[in-house]
Order: sequence, then C-alpha cells, then structure tokens
Amino acid sequence: MSKIIQWVGDAETGHLRLLDQTRLPTDEFFLDCRDVQTVWDAIRRLSVRGAPAIGVAAAYACVLSVQGIEPGSDRLEQALSEAVEHLAISRPTAVNLFWALRRMSMVRPLSAARLLSEAVAIDEENKLMTRRIGEHGLALLSGMGLFDANRPVKWDKGAAVASVLTHCNAGALACDGIGTATAPIYLAQERGLKIKVYADETRPLLQGARLTVYELRKENVDVTLICDNMAAQVMREGRVDAVIVGADRIAANGDTANKIGTYGLAVLAKYHSVPFIVAAPSTTFDMTLTDGSSIPIEHRAPEEVTAIVHARLAPRFGSVYNPAFDVTPHELIRAIVTERGVVEPVNRESVRAILEPAKVR
Amino acid sequence: MSKIIQWVGDAETGHLRLLDQTRLPTDEFFLDCRDVQTVWDAIRRLSVRGAPAIGVAAAYACVLSVQGIEPGSDRLEQALSEAVEHLAISRPTAVNLFWALRRMSMVRPLSAARLLSEAVAIDEENKLMTRRIGEHGLALLSGMGLFDANRPVKWDKGAAVASVLTHCNAGALACDGIGTATAPIYLAQERGLKIKVYADETRPLLQGARLTVYELRKENVDVTLICDNMAAQVMREGRVDAVIVGADRIAANGDTANKIGTYGLAVLAKYHSVPFIVAAPSTTFDMTLTDGSSIPIEHRAPEEVTAIVHARLAPRFGSVYNPAFDVTPHELIRAIVTERGVVEPVNRESVRAILEPAKVR
Repeated sequence: MSKIIQWVGDAETGHLRLLDQTRLPTDEFFLDCRDVQTVWDAIRRLSVRGAPAIGVAAAYACVLSVQGIEPGSDRLEQALSEAVEHLAISRPTAVNLFWALRRMSMVRPLSAARLLSEAVAIDEENKLMTRRIGEHGLALLSGMGLFDANRPVKWDKGAAVASVLTHCNAGALACDGIGTATAPIYLAQERGLKIKVYADETRPLLQGARLTVYELRKENVDVTLICDNMAAQVMREGRVDAVIVGADRIAANGDTANKIGTYGLAVLAKYHSVPFIVAAPSTTFDMTLTDGSSIPIEHRAPEEVTAIVHARLAPRFGSVYNPAFDVTPHELIRAIVTERGVVEPVNRESVRAILEPAKVR
Repeated sequence: MSKIIQWVGDAETGHLRLLDQTRLPTDEFFLDCRDVQTVWDAIRRLSVRGAPAIGVAAAYACVLSVQGIEPGSDRLEQALSEAVEHLAISRPTAVNLFWALRRMSMVRPLSAARLLSEAVAIDEENKLMTRRIGEHGLALLSGMGLFDANRPVKWDKGAAVASVLTHCNAGALACDGIGTATAPIYLAQERGLKIKVYADETRPLLQGARLTVYELRKENVDVTLICDNMAAQVMREGRVDAVIVGADRIAANGDTANKIGTYGLAVLAKYHSVPFIVAAPSTTFDMTLTDGSSIPIEHRAPEEVTAIVHARLAPRFGSVYNPAFDVTPHELIRAIVTERGVVEPVNRESVRAILEPAKVR
C-alpha cells in the first residue's frame, strides 16, 4: 500500500499529504494539506475516510494549526483549541476522531514539535493496533477451522481455501497499517495461508468496489467483486466461510453501527450459519450508549443514490431513502475482534471485560 | 405509460415500434424494427426486456419475417421457421419467449395478416393477464389487512398506508398492460387505496432505479428508491408490509428464478416476518423442472459490475462474479399470484392444481 497519511518535512514548516480516496481506483492523487481547513474539507469530502484514519489525519491537522506561531505565545493554545473544535464537527459518527482530538488537546508544553510527536505516536499506535487485530482475528478464524487443509468444502474451490466476505472498506485505506476487517486477511496472506475474499461493492458510494478491491489487489490478495444483492446467493453456494466487517461505533452491549447493508448481511449470515465477525479498535466502543438504538445515523444526499460519477441512474426528482449506516444487534454478531482480544459471545459483560484494563493502565 | 410495444401500419408493410428501455430514464426513444434481426438485437441488448414483453415482441417479429413473400409460396413457411429458430436463442432464461414462438409457428394458413392477428391476440391476452394478476394480487394484499385503515403501523407514515417493496422491474415496462408485480399496486392506485412502494435499485443493471421508479412516478404512485443493501434496514424499521416480485421461471415445486437479489430479499422477509409474494403469469411455470436446482442461471459480463454508463466503479481487471438471476426456494414464498388465481401455500400439489384447468380447456 502507498502511504495514505504522511507527514512531509519538519514540524514547523512541514505539511500533511493524503491519498485522495475519492479519485480511486482511477487516479492515485495526493492532496497536500498546509492548513486545518484543507484537512477538514478532505475529511468532509471523504478524501480521507474510515474511523481510525480520520483520527490520525485530524491529529496531524492540529500540528498545522500552530505553525508559525512563536514559541511560548498565548496564541498557541487558542489556535489549537480552535482547530480541535472545528475538526470535531467534520464528521458525526466516528468516535475515534473525538478520541484523537482529546489526546492532541492535552499536549503540554505546546509546540509544533510536541504536537507532531504526539500525532506520530497516535499514527504508530494505530498501525500497531491493526497488527494486533490481525493476530487476534487470524487466531479466531484458525480456531474455526478455516485453514484446515482437510476440511470439507461445499463448492469446488480447487483446493480448500478459507474464504471471507467483507462489506465497505475497513482496510488499510480506512485505517492505515493493515486495516481492521482486512487485518486477518493480510496476515494470512503474509504467512502463506490460502485465503480468498468476496468484496461487496457497497452502494451508494462503492467503497467496496473502489477501495477494498483496489487495495487487496495491490497486495495480490485473491478478491472477487460482487454486487451487494449477490451476497445471499454467494453464501447459499457455500462460498463464504465467515463474514468480517469493520465498525463505526459499538454500544455497550455490542450493538454495532457500520456502513448501511451490514445489518442485512448479518441476517443473511445467520440464516446460512456463517459466522459474522466485527473487527475494530477498542476506541470504537462508546460505553455511554446502552444499546444501538441511540446511535445517530447519518442520512446523506439523494444524489448519491440517483447518480454515480455524474452518470444518471434514476429519474432526478422524487423520493430517495439514503441512510449511510445501520445498526447490527449484538445477538447477530459471533465475535468482535479488537487489538486487546476477542469479545465472544458479544454482550454487555464481555464488552465491559475487554475494556476494563484501560482503567488500570 | 407510453405504449412500449406497438405495431405500426398494416400486416404487409407495417413494422414494430419498441420503447428503447436501455435509454430510460434519460430519453424516451423508440426503435423502429423492420426486420427480425433488429428485434433480435433489441431483445439481446435488453431494449425490450421482461419475460412477457419479450414474448410479445418476438411474436410481432414473426410477422416481419414473412413480409414481401407472395401468398401461398413455400418460402412463407421457411421464413417463419427460420425466424422462430433464431428468435428462440435471443435470451436463455424466460420461458414466455418459447411459448409465444410456439403459438406463432402453429398459425395456418400462413400469411402476414394471419400472423399479425395471432401476435395481436398474444399481446391482448397478455394485457388481460396482467389485470387478472392485479385483481388476485390486490385481493391477497387486502386479505392480509394491508388496507385496513385502523391497523397498527410500526412507523409514522402519517396515515396507515399499505407499503410494499419490489425488486428489479416486473412492471408495465416488462410486461405491457399493468405489469405483474406492479399490477396490484396500479389497481390499488386506480381504486383510491393508499399504497406506497419501496423500489430496490437492483444492481448491476439498475432496472429498479431506471425503470420501476420511472414507470411508477409516471402514474403518480408514491415510490421511494433505495439501494439493494438498504432493504434489510427498511424492513427492520417496519416500513414494509409485503415484498412482491416477478419471476423468470418457476419450477414444478414453486422454486422461483428471478433477478439476482430476490433470494436474499426472501430470506430477509422471513427474518422480519414480512410476507414474500411472487406475481407471474401461469406461462412462467416450467413443469419439466422438478425443482429450482436445474434452472439455468445466466452469468453476464464483468463490465456490468465494474462500470456504469462508462463511468468506472472498480479496477478494470480481476475477478467479478456476476450471476443475473438466483433461485428462491418455495418454502420462502408465501404465495404465487397468477392470472388464474393464487398458489398458497406454495408446493408441488398447489402448483399442479393451479395449472390443471389448462388440460381441459
């Protein structure tokens, strides 16, 4: 993978370089961001997207906010707090953004150099987190027997190959490192385990087709693109051993908000007895929410559905329903894989248990 | 609705005019077909599509095949049988095509005029069939209480309004008349019953977005467009009282082949206790097939998934899985509505019973 988020130069005069994901898969174009507003726009326009990646980009944006202000000046603090407040309203659903901004706003004494090293730390921890999710996830899949050479397969794969289905993009493009839902896939590939991926195209914005297929192919992972409505048929044909998706926010009981279509996949997985797995950093849990019913769901513009890249798909006027996320009830989720370990079964107690150590750190 | 299939002029010099559905919803463009090959191309390119409409178009094409041949000539029979053979290979899945061609090839004595009156008869019977499906379907929905003014509704619709979800296009564009899945909807609208429709966009070719939304809006039916992966969420919110779809081929036990995504919808409907209904003419049953496993499924080109109207959606190369249809097992189908009445419950015996009278007619 190309670096999707990169600081170029030193703290005082450097800038943030982002891979513009709105132009994939056609162009690999990098945005050079030299002020907070440019990063804010990039987050809003989904040039950088995915809960963990947004957090990392916002952290680097904080460095930009204090460049050129003389050391020790009161204006340092004011500039940072304005940047933090502004960045916090760039997207409504992802919790990682708020978590990263809180960390940045606690940096003392304030300087561009100190802010940069905190942003780099968040970035590095983020990458490490994805590898841990990969380890726990791969162990979970192995434990389910997905890599057993002699297990019976329902369709002719040639050889027994573990095959997983994913939705949207919870990959390296959403998260840097090796992604979340993709982390066990990349690790399996690294270790020479045979794994195959079905990627839902994920309407309306097609992050699966544009991003997941793009990044997995770059790493030579065997990936097959399907339309969202083909997932049921692919499961029925026995082609899917597990479904693995990311998460935007997880309530205290394990109810999980993720890209629209996730809930339907979970129902289909249950019907076909396919394990349904969520992979996300522990920062995705929002313990202030008892269950999923209070997670705010972003509804987006009708034009996302009625046109693609300016090609008209449906009549211009009239009613369109376009929720960007849905909530999957915890009882449909077999396990939640975090960098701290696996939550299984998923309920209020197991969620609390995996988050506990945070209090004593 | 504009007339989608129309014979213009007399039998000997007239021609077939088809609404080019590949150009909807942007343009209402009509194709003038003056020979069999032009009709064949129109069927292959999906300019005319939907099982019943293909049958009607092919019937009119037979008239074109004998124009200009002198009455009584042996060449009449040869021209017709060549046309019938050729048209039969234009699309593989729909049975109505074969049924219509068989009827046309039995016309005697042979002349353009006699062929035209048989094609008109098929066309008229087809329109009548759609109204009968509408009557039976509307009675079925009413019997389920969908139009009871006082029934409890799970979400705020303003007033209690029956609401149905449909997939692909089994409407007037697929079938002329008032369509099959849409027939009860149009009849409800005619009679002043309040009904609302959710239309799946139906990737990859977007017949729901382009065609169903287009035709329902033309008739002022309240229709809301959703992406296929939103259907589960819409059901979960209690917005759907029934799912109603068409069919391309139905096996003797009721297993139903229809547009890819139908099977998944049936599973989701079952999970949400929403009745799942198939509407199709009795000619859709293929009693030579014991069950759905032997229905041939057309797999189509990867480009249908990786690009829309020449806009690239996914990397150009690599694996794409693109089945055009799937098979819904009969046990997931609450009822099959035909012009002869309703098959409910759906099984080998009830299917046989609804088709029985054919033998004694």
